[in-house]
Amino acid sequence: MSQFGVIGLAVMGKNLALNVRNHGFSVAGFSIDKPEVDAFAKYEDDKLKACYTWEEFVDALEKPRKILIQIMAGRPVDETIKRLLPLLDKGDILIDGGNSNFHDTTRRCEELAQSGIHFIGMGVSGGEEGALNGPALMPGGDEEAYNEVAPILEAMAAKTPEGRPCVSYIGQSSSGHYVKMVHNGIEYAIMQEFSEIYDILRQVVGKTNDEMSAIFNDWNEDLVPSYLTEITAAVLKQQDDLTPDHIIDHILNEASYKGTGNWMLEDGVSLGAPISVIAEAVIARFMSKATTREEHHRVTEKQDKPELITALEKSLQLAQAVAYAQGFQQLTMAAKAYSWNLRYPAIAQNWEAGCIIRSAMLKDIENAYENDKDISVLFQDAYFKKLMTNNLPALRQVVAVAAASGIPTPTLSASLNYLESIFNADLPANLIQGQRDYFGAHTYERNDRPGVYHMEWYEEK
Amino acid sequence: MSQFGVIGLAVMGKNLALNVRNHGFSVAGFSIDKPEVDAFAKYEDDKLKACYTWEEFVDALEKPRKILIQIMAGRPVDETIKRLLPLLDKGDILIDGGNSNFHDTTRRCEELAQSGIHFIGMGVSGGEEGALNGPALMPGGDEEAYNEVAPILEAMAAKTPEGRPCVSYIGQSSSGHYVKMVHNGIEYAIMQEFSEIYDILRQVVGKTNDEMSAIFNDWNEDLVPSYLTEITAAVLKQQDDLTPDHIIDHILNEASYKGTGNWMLEDGVSLGAPISVIAEAVIARFMSKATTREEHHRVTEKQDKPELITALEKSLQLAQAVAYAQGFQQLTMAAKAYSWNLRYPAIAQNWEAGCIIRSAMLKDIENAYENDKDISVLFQDAYFKKLMTNNLPALRQVVAVAAASGIPTPTLSASLNYLESIFNADLPANLIQGQRDYFGAHTYERNDRPGVYHMEWYEEK
Repeated sequence: MSQFGVIGLAVMGKNLALNVRNHGFSVAGFSIDKPEVDAFAKYEDDKLKACYTWEEFVDALEKPRKILIQIMAGRPVDETIKRLLPLLDKGDILIDGGNSNFHDTTRRCEELAQSGIHFIGMGVSGGEEGALNGPALMPGGDEEAYNEVAPILEAMAAKTPEGRPCVSYIGQSSSGHYVKMVHNGIEYAIMQEFSEIYDILRQVVGKTNDEMSAIFNDWNEDLVPSYLTEITAAVLKQQDDLTPDHIIDHILNEASYKGTGNWMLEDGVSLGAPISVIAEAVIARFMSKATTREEHHRVTEKQDKPELITALEKSLQLAQAVAYAQGFQQLTMAAKAYSWNLRYPAIAQNWEAGCIIRSAMLKDIENAYENDKDISVLFQDAYFKKLMTNNLPALRQVVAVAAASGIPTPTLSASLNYLESIFNADLPANLIQGQRDYFGAHTYERNDRPGVYHMEWYEEK
Repeated sequence: MSQFGVIGLAVMGKNLALNVRNHGFSVAGFSIDKPEVDAFAKYEDDKLKACYTWEEFVDALEKPRKILIQIMAGRPVDETIKRLLPLLDKGDILIDGGNSNFHDTTRRCEELAQSGIHFIGMGVSGGEEGALNGPALMPGGDEEAYNEVAPILEAMAAKTPEGRPCVSYIGQSSSGHYVKMVHNGIEYAIMQEFSEIYDILRQVVGKTNDEMSAIFNDWNEDLVPSYLTEITAAVLKQQDDLTPDHIIDHILNEASYKGTGNWMLEDGVSLGAPISVIAEAVIARFMSKATTREEHHRVTEKQDKPELITALEKSLQLAQAVAYAQGFQQLTMAAKAYSWNLRYPAIAQNWEAGCIIRSAMLKDIENAYENDKDISVLFQDAYFKKLMTNNLPALRQVVAVAAASGIPTPTLSASLNYLESIFNADLPANLIQGQRDYFGAHTYERNDRPGVYHMEWYEEK
């Protein structure tokens, strides 16, 4: 009998199954795609079994069964659950490891609870390589069921630099998939920040690809140690395989997307979350496909100054912090709206290794929420407040230089505007409220006494 | 027998009914709220009839009946339609004049078509005063039915400076409510732009409320003639009724919203529309409620220079154009996605009077789409291209000054970044595609040959 089952044996499912087996647990795999099962069968041994039918697969599993569904999100997940249900027993545990929309996961949790089946919606980050060697896992749903599968998940997950597993119980219902969605929104934001910094380095500072690669390598050892810094250096250094040039100069500049960043923005709007950097990153991808590619007049005077490069490094560090901060701000608003009890230090820890947005800064975020779980804005924490104070002048300078030079910086600008707004007691929204009362009698509150007011505005100008 | 019927006699419904009557058409009014009918009955004469029951109301109308439903959007509209249906005859025309979500309107169009009832979803802008004296009307749905009611709608609508009515057939299905939603998104954007310009004028230039009021009055006669310019001047000049101060200094700076701007952003995300200024305006309202109001360190050195004020005026003019441009860009994408045949010059004309975003610039937009109905970006038009060329240096300067001074400018920054991106053949999204291929084997296209590629990235750094 196998201790763990995996449905869906494409590269992610296969690698996760091998990962489980490599950590000493027995695993059975099944797919409706026979060639996938054939490929999986080549790994067969006393700890790994390939199954060709639903019944063979279900019967191969120890009870309560622990089944990871690793297939395309959407209708296939519902169809798989429907096909499985008559074969399962009360108390069995289903884990959906796909990029499911959290609304679907909420519904599935409710539906399966009625059948006595435990359901875990689990975000998985780390790509193919992470699946095999250690992904970041974000499981939400039934906590008892989580405790049943925790030994397996902890064994297979990535480990932080301190050796702790990048998995822990996230919270109720669809909160695991929600956290993965927020992870992906942050990923969009930080990637766009890197691309803007790259644009300034090449257009304003005038650096070559190799020089930029070296700069990002330096920053990876200095203020911005992260996986994305590391791979940015690697991408910029890479030789093309079809021309004598660097590949970066021949990659078409249209950014694709699969939609989880968009989902975060959609739910952020419904929650009223001020996630401007995420929004700008999502829209920058739209923009890259909408660009009409006519002439564009840019200021071309180069400014190859070490101070500007230092300011760029500090700006990237601070803008990265803003991306994380907006993600956590949306999580706190979602937790309140959806009645989830989220443990923010654990979420930060889950992201410290294995996933795309892993970085040294996540340890500082973990510490911030360990110190005060009730902060609503990350920059209320002393460490991040100091980071803001130290780096804000650099970010102001970089945005001003980019504006004057004609370089678009949607996420750097949004990062700056967020920091200039979030602690700003003097935002000019009083004018908007005045206009709304003027044209629509929408009323306003006052800053000097309670109550709701309407002005009899002068009719004449 | 009455030529037109209105259901819902709160201030909007009552004023629209009086507007119809004042233009010589006979009108019957009904509400489920008896006091509203009582109040309406005071206006009764040979052209105006107050009805106290559904049956009395329906029987008072000429066939085919023309009924405007002017009540709260959402479930009440469905309940009203359900109550009316058994009393109607095939060929009768229902008009929903509320701020309905366009998805609801799409559904209602389909449902009512099955009953042989014509349905028109109509956006109405202009507030209470516009309802009585001339609103902007945006009717979509059944074109034959529109032609039946056109004489009445054209009579009651606002008139452009050239005397043309601010109403015309928008397009199929829910396109009328969609256009109203986009109107409101543009309204959010331009209002936020005004508030940022106001913030720079008071914080950086150091102007008093009366000085700022005079400046906006000047601009209303110069580069930014618009209703919002006019009322901004009025709001800034207004005396408080409770203190010796100007009211603007006592209005609480938290901006409220009812949601149609949010809807535009949500649909823009699903369409992939690069509506960054709308997004920032929606999020700025969230931000005004999320602000933690701790200390905020701002550069306080005043710069009272006439050149800066001129740059602010040019920036506002250009940023206003970007707000319109993003709205029209989303309309062109929606028309394609939803198979609507939208007539953009007519939409611009509909907004030239009566509505909140009315401005002289809408005539230029009408001309742009008259000259070339296939432009996907407004700034492809010669007039707007010239405006961009003329004013872009000012907008770059203003964003740079604001960044250096610590003033948040989310929509001015987004306007600038949009203009720096939309014609930019060198956007840095190639780095994002490189990163995506590196960590997820997501592949990339090339700029020098067709096809889809994956790189075998160096493993070592």
